[in-house]
Amino acid sequence: MRTLEVDLGDRSYPIYIGGDLLKQAGAYFERHGLTKKSPVLIVTDKNVAPLHLHKVEASLQASGYRTVCHIVEAGEPSKSLAVFEQVMTTAIENGLDRKSSVVALGGGVVGDLAGFVAASYMRGVTFVQMPTTILAHDSSVGGKVAVNHRLAKNMIGAFYQPEMVLYDVNSLQTLPDREVRAGLSEMVKHGLIWDEPFANWCGDNCDKLLALDADALEYGLIQGCGIKAKVVATDEREQGLRAILNLGHTLGHAIEATGGYGEYLHGEAISIGMAAAALIAVHRGRDASLYEKTIQLLKGFGLPTAMPQHLKEEQLISAMMHDKKFTENKIVFVLPVRIGEVEIVSDVMLEEVRQVIAELKGEGQNV
Amino acid sequence: MRTLEVDLGDRSYPIYIGGDLLKQAGAYFERHGLTKKSPVLIVTDKNVAPLHLHKVEASLQASGYRTVCHIVEAGEPSKSLAVFEQVMTTAIENGLDRKSSVVALGGGVVGDLAGFVAASYMRGVTFVQMPTTILAHDSSVGGKVAVNHRLAKNMIGAFYQPEMVLYDVNSLQTLPDREVRAGLSEMVKHGLIWDEPFANWCGDNCDKLLALDADALEYGLIQGCGIKAKVVATDEREQGLRAILNLGHTLGHAIEATGGYGEYLHGEAISIGMAAAALIAVHRGRDASLYEKTIQLLKGFGLPTAMPQHLKEEQLISAMMHDKKFTENKIVFVLPVRIGEVEIVSDVMLEEVRQVIAELKGEGQNV
Ligand SMILES: NC(=O)c1ccc[n+]([C@@H]2O[C@H](COP(=O)([O-])OP(=O)(O)OC[C@H]3O[C@@H](n4cnc5c(N)ncnc54)[C@H](O)[C@@H]3O)[C@@H](O)[C@H]2O)c1
Ligand SMILES: NC(=O)c1ccc[n+]([C@@H]2O[C@H](COP(=O)([O-])OP(=O)(O)OC[C@H]3O[C@@H](n4cnc5c(N)ncnc54)[C@H](O)[C@@H]3O)[C@@H](O)[C@H]2O)c1
Ligand SMILES: [Zn+2]
Ligand SMILES: [Zn+2]
Repeated sequence: MRTLEVDLGDRSYPIYIGGDLLKQAGAYFERHGLTKKSPVLIVTDKNVAPLHLHKVEASLQASGYRTVCHIVEAGEPSKSLAVFEQVMTTAIENGLDRKSSVVALGGGVVGDLAGFVAASYMRGVTFVQMPTTILAHDSSVGGKVAVNHRLAKNMIGAFYQPEMVLYDVNSLQTLPDREVRAGLSEMVKHGLIWDEPFANWCGDNCDKLLALDADALEYGLIQGCGIKAKVVATDEREQGLRAILNLGHTLGHAIEATGGYGEYLHGEAISIGMAAAALIAVHRGRDASLYEKTIQLLKGFGLPTAMPQHLKEEQLISAMMHDKKFTENKIVFVLPVRIGEVEIVSDVMLEEVRQVIAELKGEGQNV
Repeated sequence: MRTLEVDLGDRSYPIYIGGDLLKQAGAYFERHGLTKKSPVLIVTDKNVAPLHLHKVEASLQASGYRTVCHIVEAGEPSKSLAVFEQVMTTAIENGLDRKSSVVALGGGVVGDLAGFVAASYMRGVTFVQMPTTILAHDSSVGGKVAVNHRLAKNMIGAFYQPEMVLYDVNSLQTLPDREVRAGLSEMVKHGLIWDEPFANWCGDNCDKLLALDADALEYGLIQGCGIKAKVVATDEREQGLRAILNLGHTLGHAIEATGGYGEYLHGEAISIGMAAAALIAVHRGRDASLYEKTIQLLKGFGLPTAMPQHLKEEQLISAMMHDKKFTENKIVFVLPVRIGEVEIVSDVMLEEVRQVIAELKGEGQNV
């Protein structure tokens, strides 16, 4: 088991990464001094519940905690105000009080939803993250929690830090292959924005990672979380530097939105977005090898790098217009400088984006 | 014009109290360096809009700000997740971005609703309070924002401090008489919990205050806000001391809830709650004059101090059981020690509460 401290002053918290941590949930709750007098609400989804919920419940109950569960449908549509309200109802009906904890057991969807519940229930209760996807290594650091509005993703939320993160690497063994790849997309992103050796390590270890080798996963997650933690620690409320974490996300969110939040996984969408960002950078003068290396790395993980034909350019553009990355009507884009370094560029023109969307559609025809 | 600084470290903010401040909104926005490139969303209600909205709009527009308005139904039902979502829709559709401000122009309902919108929109934008009720002198200090859940009031919210509060005493001249009295209830409360001379001043000046005399109002609001600011500054997140502000609120919220959030105004409900708290204190050994003085002060403002006959004891009790003031199944009550001082008592028994509800119903028959 390894521990990573996310350093945010009096909102600092540890991420525990290792095997079988879910079975030790009760001990970690005790270590953090969480009261046994108030009920604990575990939010999870229909896929994760049959696989992993019993471990958490059994461990907490063995330590003397009273648990309440709320199980949502799996998938992005559960990040809605309607589901948020249902979780609140469960919390109230089961007498959760100010000293209660809300646990997110699942991927980023459950993490974001349960995190916003924890941030808002009685104006804030203790939040514990138990990520069960690789992608959630990203959402477990940084304190961003949110639900979606039908017009745009993540529009309604808060910055709210957890008390701790329990990252059980064994729980990842049950992940479907497509989710594994999509999660590794965000891990690769952390290499691309910050750490060339780590990006190269990802490329060299892509078979081990795809095979869910425990040592490789533990190392990769620690590095990925560590990079994000460093960025977040210098910019908790996304005033500047933190925006580099959005590499691939401006177009990625538009792909998710036009695909109806269902067709593309987040990690797949941002993989295409990272390819697009590299191509824009090349058009603006970076060496062509930057784009080649980027898509080679992503393809190694079986991730998409071409723009799907059926996504309409106009819909992508208009989805981007609604996105919060548009400040004062200019398009802000994170563009790579080289592998391991990015820059925030605020003058990307719609024309450049249209051009790249068209070129990446062409790419698709050769695959 | 007087300025009161609410001292909360890097979340400190000024409350400006004086005449005709709404007409100077643009100048205050400029003074606080708020950008003119991002739209400003003004949230108000159907009663306040025709009376005061044009002043704010005109002033902001004259200074070069683009304004968007969202007008909700007047009254407590607008503090709902459904209305919250509608305001979010307006914000997104009108292109509010991270540098936008959300203005609450109205009473506590609009303040709490718009405040939670400001806290959650894109995970937090600038919040400006322009209170137009006397009661809102209370809600404009402390950073508590929230909407109601159908099972309990203020269950879903945040601690979120405004950038500034513009308190235009002239805007209070249009308040209906019943709202004036209800608002003064919270002002009296501030005297009762903290400041005997101010409580006495309220009693001595009740005619002036009821007649909306500008000097009396300005003094009373500064004192009321000042007391609340002192309490909040020592306990921003309601860990301890801040709970004294809940004098009258445990039973008051139950009265509002059982009256369907419509029959009783907040200030009326807590007036009955303050009478009840004084009576419980007397039953526990305080001098009988404590109760007599309390109800005399409240009656001077035409506020209710008897329990309405038609409110069922069982419903009141069960509403209290759902209230967040119940921690770990014990009933926490704020009880007066003397005029100007209260204590937080955590072992009040249901029986004591039932007894006082019955006695205060008897009171009603003599009135
Ligand atoms: N808050 C942040 O900083 C942040 C960062 C990145 C992504 N996100 C959000 O995260 C979400 C995507 O996260 P995600 O990819 O984890 O999605 P997810 O939570 O939907 O999980 C993906 C799928 O895997 C299933 N699953 C989860 N754990 C499993 C396990 N151990 N075994 C078998 N199946 C399992 C889920 O039921 C789901 O079907 C998006 O909503 C995105 O906006 C948030
Ligand atoms: N956040 C806090 O700390 C805090 C503290 C106390 C109360 N509150 C909340 O405040 C709410 C009650 O506040 P309120 O009494 O101001 O209610 P309110 O906002 O409903 O206003 C009362 C009524 O007066 C009308 N009105 C407002 N200003 C007017 C004006 N200048 N002229 C004419 N009519 C006007 C409104 O339309 C409404 O009908 C409750 O929801 C309560 O929970 C919050
Ligand atoms: Zn992401
Ligand atoms: Zn109140």
